[in-house]
Amino acid sequence: MSALARSVLVTGSNRGIGLELVRQLAASPQPPQHIFATCRDPEGPRGKALRELAAQHPSIKLVQLDTVNLASIRGAVRAVESHLKDQGLNLLINNAGVSSHATLRSLDLQEMLSIFATNAVGPIQVAKEFLPLLDKAAKGMGKEGLSCSRAAVINVSTKLGSIGLCLGVLEAPMYPYRASKAAQNMVTRCMAAELRDQGILCTAIHPGWVKTDMGTEKAPLTVEQSVRGILSVLAGLSQETSGAFLDWEGNSLPW
Amino acid sequence: MSALARSVLVTGSNRGIGLELVRQLAASPQPPQHIFATCRDPEGPRGKALRELAAQHPSIKLVQLDTVNLASIRGAVRAVESHLKDQGLNLLINNAGVSSHATLRSLDLQEMLSIFATNAVGPIQVAKEFLPLLDKAAKGMGKEGLSCSRAAVINVSTKLGSIGLCLGVLEAPMYPYRASKAAQNMVTRCMAAELRDQGILCTAIHPGWVKTDMGTEKAPLTVEQSVRGILSVLAGLSQETSGAFLDWEGNSLPW
Ligand SMILES: NC(=O)c1ccc[n+]([C@@H]2O[C@H](COP(=O)([O-])OP(=O)(O)OC[C@H]3O[C@@H](n4cnc5c(N)ncnc54)[C@H](OP(=O)(O)O)[C@@H]3O)[C@@H](O)[C@H]2O)c1
Ligand SMILES: NC(=O)c1ccc[n+]([C@@H]2O[C@H](COP(=O)([O-])OP(=O)(O)OC[C@H]3O[C@@H](n4cnc5c(N)ncnc54)[C@H](OP(=O)(O)O)[C@@H]3O)[C@@H](O)[C@H]2O)c1
Repeated sequence: MSALARSVLVTGSNRGIGLELVRQLAASPQPPQHIFATCRDPEGPRGKALRELAAQHPSIKLVQLDTVNLASIRGAVRAVESHLKDQGLNLLINNAGVSSHATLRSLDLQEMLSIFATNAVGPIQVAKEFLPLLDKAAKGMGKEGLSCSRAAVINVSTKLGSIGLCLGVLEAPMYPYRASKAAQNMVTRCMAAELRDQGILCTAIHPGWVKTDMGTEKAPLTVEQSVRGILSVLAGLSQETSGAFLDWEGNSLPW
Repeated sequence: MSALARSVLVTGSNRGIGLELVRQLAASPQPPQHIFATCRDPEGPRGKALRELAAQHPSIKLVQLDTVNLASIRGAVRAVESHLKDQGLNLLINNAGVSSHATLRSLDLQEMLSIFATNAVGPIQVAKEFLPLLDKAAKGMGKEGLSCSRAAVINVSTKLGSIGLCLGVLEAPMYPYRASKAAQNMVTRCMAAELRDQGILCTAIHPGWVKTDMGTEKAPLTVEQSVRGILSVLAGLSQETSGAFLDWEGNSLPW
């Protein structure tokens, strides 16, 4: 099995799905040469598990990256660039996200905007700033077509962001979360259309309902199961699935 | 032909599609008893055309309403309540909206958030604050089923907000506008699911590409044509089309 990609960057990788993505990538038989494990505070207490993991794998580089702070994103681009030397970045995984349990009656403007900032604007701002490095990878890999091993942006979405399904609103209203992820899905589709000719793939992935701080212990899937599925779906992405909305098993979801 | 609704409120009604909605409602053979024509600055120069229209029709009441300002929304609820006495509000048309031509390369966080605030959060905040009055109408009309003459929230959306269609991204990237309207569509679907049992209908309507300040002179449709279509679609809405995404001719659009 060949490596998924020579270089991968994951946002929000200090816990939950992001941490497990870094763990499984680093432990794979053919690990990426560079795994940029980014989070808001790599030196602080919230970065402990990630620091311990990085200590065991020289391929993991810790990089500070707050997805709603442009200066932080730009600092991360410089740090990644200095590691990659004249190579590009193959795979950007926009995993960082926040949830909200606000209902129609309880929601307010500021809370909604803060959820939008992280879930919808964050991924697009990060992608935009890393575009020159993704573009370099797309051009420099000597590859045709679209794939994660060439150049790709993966946006971690959710089934709750499917307008068509509109699952369980009465039990879990979560208006700001759902609306922000529908907006993120639109961003994925637009980027897929715009970046296709540049050789950059963009796909939205629903990780399943997963036992993390966000998913809670009630979730049926472990992070190991979800991430194993996600990585195998990523390995199979191509022109046909750029601009798609897939779950961790590769099933297509309606917008 | 019976009246579309006894009372109607339109946001952003000082120009464009909103102004024409008020004009055609007031001029209809059976006009609503109360037409609440709301805008940000009814007394200022931008309210001139609306003031002139209101002077000809006693059914039109001008009400100040900035859809991203909670104090303003609450003031509008009180003003509307005082006119309605003990009746409810039948039909809320969330028409106010802003466009954005930002591309992937030019967009920034603050601009995206401001577009989200108006296009996605505005409609939900306005609906939330008017919910007691909509609920009163739903209960007090002695009607079964869902309709605009009982109680309804109509969110003016756009075909450009269809993730499934993802029309013309290369020619008109408009990422913030598209993402905000996809988020608004999610809000429409969630509200339709949540408010159905309360007797309140929610539907998203695409007005077509219309000659207004936003649509520009290049648009093929006049406001007269678009609004004539919208009002005839609204008159036909029912349980079946609550939670739907329809254009001004009644055609269903994919999310
Ligand atoms: N768990 C589920 O069941 C589930 C289901 C569907 C979709 N998802 C999606 O999967 C992704 C990961 O979720 P999870 O379950 O792993 O959530 P989680 O355990 O709550 O972790 C969220 C991660 O995002 C990071 N983050 C939040 N805001 C950030 C910002 N501005 N900049 C950088 N990092 C930020 C957090 O960092 P801090 O530690 O600094 O807060 C944390 O690392 C999210 O996009 C989520 O919407 C999860
Ligand atoms: N025209 C088209 O081709 C087209 C196509 C698809 C969808 N739409 C949608 O149709 C709706 C109306 O568009 P239009 O073409 O009539 O646009 P327009 O001519 O630009 O008018 C926009 C209206 O929204 C108001 N508005 C903006 N922000 C507001 C706020 N915070 N509070 C209250 N009012 C606010 C404006 O008031 P001010 O005068 O105070 O700025 C104005 O009355 C929008 O939702 C738009 O997205 C239009």
